[in-house]
Amino acid sequence: MKSNLTAVAAALLSATMSTSALAQEVETERHTLSLETISEGLNHPWGIAFLPSGDMLVTERSGTLNIITQEGQKTPIQGTPEVVAKSQGGLLDVNIDPDYADNGWVYISYSEKDPKGGNGNSTAVMRGKIDGDKWTQGEVIFRQAPKYESNAHFGSRLVFSPEGHLFITLGERYSRMQDAQTLDNHHGKIVRIWPDGSIPKDNPFVGNDDALDEIWSYGHRNVQGAAIHPDTGELWTIEHGPQGGDEVNIPKAGKNYGWPTITYGEDYGGGEIGIGTHKEGMEQPFYYWLPSIATAGSIFYTGDKFPKWKGDLLVTALRGQTIARLDLEEGRVLHEERMLEDATSFRIRDIEQGPEGFLYILTDADSGQLIKLSPVK
Amino acid sequence: MKSNLTAVAAALLSATMSTSALAQEVETERHTLSLETISEGLNHPWGIAFLPSGDMLVTERSGTLNIITQEGQKTPIQGTPEVVAKSQGGLLDVNIDPDYADNGWVYISYSEKDPKGGNGNSTAVMRGKIDGDKWTQGEVIFRQAPKYESNAHFGSRLVFSPEGHLFITLGERYSRMQDAQTLDNHHGKIVRIWPDGSIPKDNPFVGNDDALDEIWSYGHRNVQGAAIHPDTGELWTIEHGPQGGDEVNIPKAGKNYGWPTITYGEDYGGGEIGIGTHKEGMEQPFYYWLPSIATAGSIFYTGDKFPKWKGDLLVTALRGQTIARLDLEEGRVLHEERMLEDATSFRIRDIEQGPEGFLYILTDADSGQLIKLSPVK
Ligand SMILES: [Ca+2]
Ligand SMILES: [Ca+2]
Ligand SMILES: [Ca+2]
Ligand SMILES: [Ca+2]
Repeated sequence: MKSNLTAVAAALLSATMSTSALAQEVETERHTLSLETISEGLNHPWGIAFLPSGDMLVTERSGTLNIITQEGQKTPIQGTPEVVAKSQGGLLDVNIDPDYADNGWVYISYSEKDPKGGNGNSTAVMRGKIDGDKWTQGEVIFRQAPKYESNAHFGSRLVFSPEGHLFITLGERYSRMQDAQTLDNHHGKIVRIWPDGSIPKDNPFVGNDDALDEIWSYGHRNVQGAAIHPDTGELWTIEHGPQGGDEVNIPKAGKNYGWPTITYGEDYGGGEIGIGTHKEGMEQPFYYWLPSIATAGSIFYTGDKFPKWKGDLLVTALRGQTIARLDLEEGRVLHEERMLEDATSFRIRDIEQGPEGFLYILTDADSGQLIKLSPVK
Repeated sequence: MKSNLTAVAAALLSATMSTSALAQEVETERHTLSLETISEGLNHPWGIAFLPSGDMLVTERSGTLNIITQEGQKTPIQGTPEVVAKSQGGLLDVNIDPDYADNGWVYISYSEKDPKGGNGNSTAVMRGKIDGDKWTQGEVIFRQAPKYESNAHFGSRLVFSPEGHLFITLGERYSRMQDAQTLDNHHGKIVRIWPDGSIPKDNPFVGNDDALDEIWSYGHRNVQGAAIHPDTGELWTIEHGPQGGDEVNIPKAGKNYGWPTITYGEDYGGGEIGIGTHKEGMEQPFYYWLPSIATAGSIFYTGDKFPKWKGDLLVTALRGQTIARLDLEEGRVLHEERMLEDATSFRIRDIEQGPEGFLYILTDADSGQLIKLSPVK
């Protein structure tokens, strides 16, 4: 877990310096990285998606969707929906349609006010198109039910399966954790829909009158990371757990991932949760972090710029201020590296791989950054 | 990886106190442990084996085989073979026959002088019986070939398969590392024999005139840990690697585990070794440590005293001064805990589970200890 900031780079670090001058070298186990700030002053940036042009869509939790070029030129998009920007809520993830080149659809997740009034809210997913700097043709394709008065645990990463399904990862709103075990609500669930909001006929609970048809898997806490495995096409999710309970799962149709009945964690402050770590009929995680690193976004690295990371799962962490690299081989973790941990002090919300194989991360702060990672060697 | 030494226990710690007064509490993730020194003043103790009575056989690297009772009464056995007690060499592991109750055979591994003279030596395995405080009927059942002038990398853990084979884990003598890739020698090999020294007919290289018949697997560096998986019956080994290359392997018949051609480590001081981490025809480890913890002994925990560790692989470390606990589930590592790391400063050479499910460790020092681990909760 060695990672060093070179002395020269350290001397260059300053909050007042110009963007392009921030180039910092960090050693990791297998590659030495150069970190370059592409854009700064982003208010709690949450999600990144690449457009075919190489420009990026980047959300700010306070409600702004931006297009940011590789040179750092930022264009805020006008007309995106109103969001409940309180605590963990606001404008969250963004992704583009697998057929974006043909249809131009862009998907965003956000905390949406209860249209009936009151303080209720929940995660919604809208798709729309971007025309210049305008958000157009917006249509809500999913609403987490029920609306509930909480500003915590929204999920909500958006990824597409190889068959074109949209997976939406959802939180249990913190104070509704028991809902994660019942199927009449969307709290603590992963849902699978088609991009137009319709429900795949082979979803696991279709035909079960006691369960919502959108549900793919349940018993989750707050799933902020999701990635499709490049070889198997399976969904892998990263769950922000309680103290000591961050998890990687490979959610299968209709399966129960245990929260809050089983967990490796404990309540913040030390209280016990649930009955222990195992229960018949509930799935074990693929991997877990104890103590917690406070996991957020995740990708599988598939590019050529960091060849020694190919096939590895990269998981960003908030409190842990790290990118955890899980060296995977034949379906198991051979080794975990905590990258950047000693060299930087960023809470890292998301990570994305660009079309050329470089990596891009978002730091979680009032004035957050979009940072590009390039190989030095 | 939290582990705390209670203040009261810390105050009690003293090198001059009587043995039984040393009771120290250490917190781990899932159990709180009490550590009690059973015996001290052991010169680099290396291996432990339990007799059916609950007494322990404990080797000292300088050449003494002891019987030690649960109360710490120590009886040195007279007449064990001469050993080359230099640097890493000397009297190493000990184990008893699976049919010990009927046949009384005890097995020891040690560095044996070249009987033809000179400074050559290699790992040998002798079996014998203990009559009171006498070693009797000693017969050498295996000799690592060739004898070679080195005081490093002897292996040499002794474990029995469920079918009664004896596995002997061997080192590559450090300066003969390339030998680990050729089959005309026992350097960097795991060998499988019958307890009387004869060769199982189904060993993978029987019938191959270019390979020694005892060889089970090859491409190893210095395998000091070995345990049989309680459910699968498979051999698991712990390999003390170069800087950054400690490995867990599950050696299969005739397979090549890569050393020194592939490794996750580097030479002490930083030099590159081999060609990288992967090569066709060479097996990946099951798990690896980077940075190294300097692995030594290992067991699967199967008892009832530490129920939350059941099925976990416990691996002791020298430089790491820890017991690494690999939380295993369906053939993968879910999580690694480094136990004792912050609470004690023992180089730990070996670990064994007693018949009642308590754990016993050996600390590696000129005046080493045999310590019993009991659950507080
Ligand atoms: Ca993304
Ligand atoms: Ca879970
Ligand atoms: Ca033993
Ligand atoms: Ca190897």
